[in-house]
Amino acid sequence: MFTKNKAKLIKSLHEKKHRNETGLFLVEGEKNVTELLVSDFIIDSLLVTKTFFEENNKLIENKNITCDMVDQNEIEKVSTLESNNAALAVVKQKENVSFEISKNDLVIVLDDVRDPGNLGTIIRIADWYGIKNIIASETTADFYNSKVISATKGSFMRVKVFYTDLSSFLSKTKLPVFGAFLEGENVHTVKFPKEGILLMGNESRGISENIEKYVSKKITIPSFGKAESLNVAIATAVILDNWRRGI
Amino acid sequence: MFTKNKAKLIKSLHEKKHRNETGLFLVEGEKNVTELLVSDFIIDSLLVTKTFFEENNKLIENKNITCDMVDQNEIEKVSTLESNNAALAVVKQKENVSFEISKNDLVIVLDDVRDPGNLGTIIRIADWYGIKNIIASETTADFYNSKVISATKGSFMRVKVFYTDLSSFLSKTKLPVFGAFLEGENVHTVKFPKEGILLMGNESRGISENIEKYVSKKITIPSFGKAESLNVAIATAVILDNWRRGI
Repeated sequence: MFTKNKAKLIKSLHEKKHRNETGLFLVEGEKNVTELLVSDFIIDSLLVTKTFFEENNKLIENKNITCDMVDQNEIEKVSTLESNNAALAVVKQKENVSFEISKNDLVIVLDDVRDPGNLGTIIRIADWYGIKNIIASETTADFYNSKVISATKGSFMRVKVFYTDLSSFLSKTKLPVFGAFLEGENVHTVKFPKEGILLMGNESRGISENIEKYVSKKITIPSFGKAESLNVAIATAVILDNWRRGI
Repeated sequence: MFTKNKAKLIKSLHEKKHRNETGLFLVEGEKNVTELLVSDFIIDSLLVTKTFFEENNKLIENKNITCDMVDQNEIEKVSTLESNNAALAVVKQKENVSFEISKNDLVIVLDDVRDPGNLGTIIRIADWYGIKNIIASETTADFYNSKVISATKGSFMRVKVFYTDLSSFLSKTKLPVFGAFLEGENVHTVKFPKEGILLMGNESRGISENIEKYVSKKITIPSFGKAESLNVAIATAVILDNWRRGI
């Protein structure tokens, strides 16, 4: 039964504080929840419309989970999405996430990317370009933020984000570090290696001064017009496209 | 004086209906309003914080406009932005906007791009890649929507968006039409011409069937991972980067 307490729990998960306390997070909307049902994430409970239930009956039964069938407006009351006519899942966060960088891997490092939409979009881009690991500063947006999860369009299940102190990580890595700056070598002529790190900075301030010293090559996307800059997710995609085409 | 009526007018401009009726729209936030002050847009009235006024004193006086100095929270009460510590302008829409495609121009055509954030980001990308004209279906997000204006980061002053019937426009153009599809020629090997049209489709459905017949070449961004697609603004940037590098 969809109780008041459950509604309260779901709403509390809109906030990072409560996500941390409970170790839970939300996955919302048709595409994300459908993909979730075939992933290895552990679902705590599910809120679905009749239509969604009928279309995903077998997947839901396989999972053997608490599933409440409710009206669309009841989902929307507790959802972070303005419109959600399908499903909302309460999901267990993964514990002790570790990362392993294999030979020939590209790794994205994010220095203080604050906007959840940008982080989610970068996760989706990483998944498109076959990148499995993102290393992020502690100040980067929270992976389990609903806006991040929604913007990934399902890619949060295939790309890991590790939060750590970047100075410490970058001072130890042997991989070359390519940092995105407004003045650097043109990405159209840079010789990208098979393995390496792409370092992207904050939306307004770019890469921090205390991190800049770990950059082995500054790179830039050539401009042909008058905009002062590109959005960080856009820039990540353009650089990765240049990186992947060269290999 | 910042009257209740002015507050009411500003709030009404959050909606397309009232923007159309009054021929006005909002420009919000420090960067956008600062750029607005040196543009040829006609400002109806201005709401600023003391700090913003002091920093932009001369520009504001040059414009000879009604300017109310208020507290940040008064701006935020009527703003569409969650946080706005600088300024908000009520601006006249341009009348009878016309477009002219010059020799060697690239033109972006948008078929039903619904999300205002996507349209705004595409305008910023167009400005980065030196594109002055965007032709959009009537169903594409409204150029004067505050979310569009904000996402352009000032580029709305340099890139024009024309709304028209795409079938009619595309049936008459002599420019080659490159359409973005999930299956097409790899953009890394396509020979792009100096002048042409890049056609991008709707966020979920892509390019409409009735428009597809005008496409001279289907192109695609190669994937190296498992994401099903890229966001339309991301894809626009990656394709334009490939287009510009080849010329």
